[in-house]
Amino acid sequence: MDTLTPERATIRQHPERAANQEAADFLAAGTVAHVGFQVNGQPYVIPFSYQFDGSTPDRLYLHGGHSSHTLRALSDGAAVCVTVTMVDGLVFSRTALNHSMNYRSVVCFGRARAIEDSEEKQRIFTSMIDRYFPGRTAGEHYAAATEAQLRATAVLEVTIENMSAKVRRGGATGPLDNDPDALGTCGVVPL
Amino acid sequence: MDTLTPERATIRQHPERAANQEAADFLAAGTVAHVGFQVNGQPYVIPFSYQFDGSTPDRLYLHGGHSSHTLRALSDGAAVCVTVTMVDGLVFSRTALNHSMNYRSVVCFGRARAIEDSEEKQRIFTSMIDRYFPGRTAGEHYAAATEAQLRATAVLEVTIENMSAKVRRGGATGPLDNDPDALGTCGVVPL
Repeated sequence: MDTLTPERATIRQHPERAANQEAADFLAAGTVAHVGFQVNGQPYVIPFSYQFDGSTPDRLYLHGGHSSHTLRALSDGAAVCVTVTMVDGLVFSRTALNHSMNYRSVVCFGRARAIEDSEEKQRIFTSMIDRYFPGRTAGEHYAAATEAQLRATAVLEVTIENMSAKVRRGGATGPLDNDPDALGTCGVVPL
Repeated sequence: MDTLTPERATIRQHPERAANQEAADFLAAGTVAHVGFQVNGQPYVIPFSYQFDGSTPDRLYLHGGHSSHTLRALSDGAAVCVTVTMVDGLVFSRTALNHSMNYRSVVCFGRARAIEDSEEKQRIFTSMIDRYFPGRTAGEHYAAATEAQLRATAVLEVTIENMSAKVRRGGATGPLDNDPDALGTCGVVPL
């Protein structure tokens, strides 16, 4: 995986927020992946739960039904963009345009393929449930998927070719925010 | 605005989760918009803060610097997809594949144009700050944007041509989740 600056992964806005060394941490911590692709000239952005595991840091997994528009559109190796964003706080400033958000985000570029192997699907579901619900274990807390259930479920593997991560942390940074005598207030509403 | 089922807005997965009558409520409640577009065959999904106001329910507003890749790519009327998702809970089930999320989401399809008029930009920023920070008022809590600041900032207006909203609420719905004697546990972790 090359996270280094092909054109599509170049950060132009707020380059001081680049955080590529934290990309895997952000992917491991996220809840929703927004999956972007294009069909017949129309871009789509669809939210998915997903699996990411630091042991294979160039792979993301998405699952859905076989009828899923997204999974069908992507299973043939089409270009995909998968973005994971966490908002950590709302930043208010003494200056209108310095209102902002604290966030962590990763934008991943890659290609997808359908996973057909039942054992691999099983392994992905098990680790995905453990990521969302740490310690939750098949055979103890829930029944593992049956063969029939696995066959009825589509899993997409996204191979990440490039990615870029950004982060904003801390308080307001407007031109008046260090001046306690200036009009107004500044701070962060944690989320 | 036509929210009624052109092909691109048709919900195939979990049609029982369709919630188009709540689309405006979801857009008014969201924090982050994931904006999807394509450049040279590559899909992009970029997170933005945004403005949505029920009084103009077919418009969304995005802002950023003039150097923003996204804003430049979109200001010429290219097709765009803007998706807003809120995750309300993590649903765990007695059955592997019935683990789920409670969420509200809206997928909007439309086209964008750059707003050049300073007064319109000012109005959008003022209402956007009030949406994120209810009651926060220019001249009292912060200094309104100056003409120079407005000129330095790009605002994109997205006209929503179609949209579709989905919601999942409630507990686990796996085949064993109504059977208290079955192996395991089920419930919802609120977020």
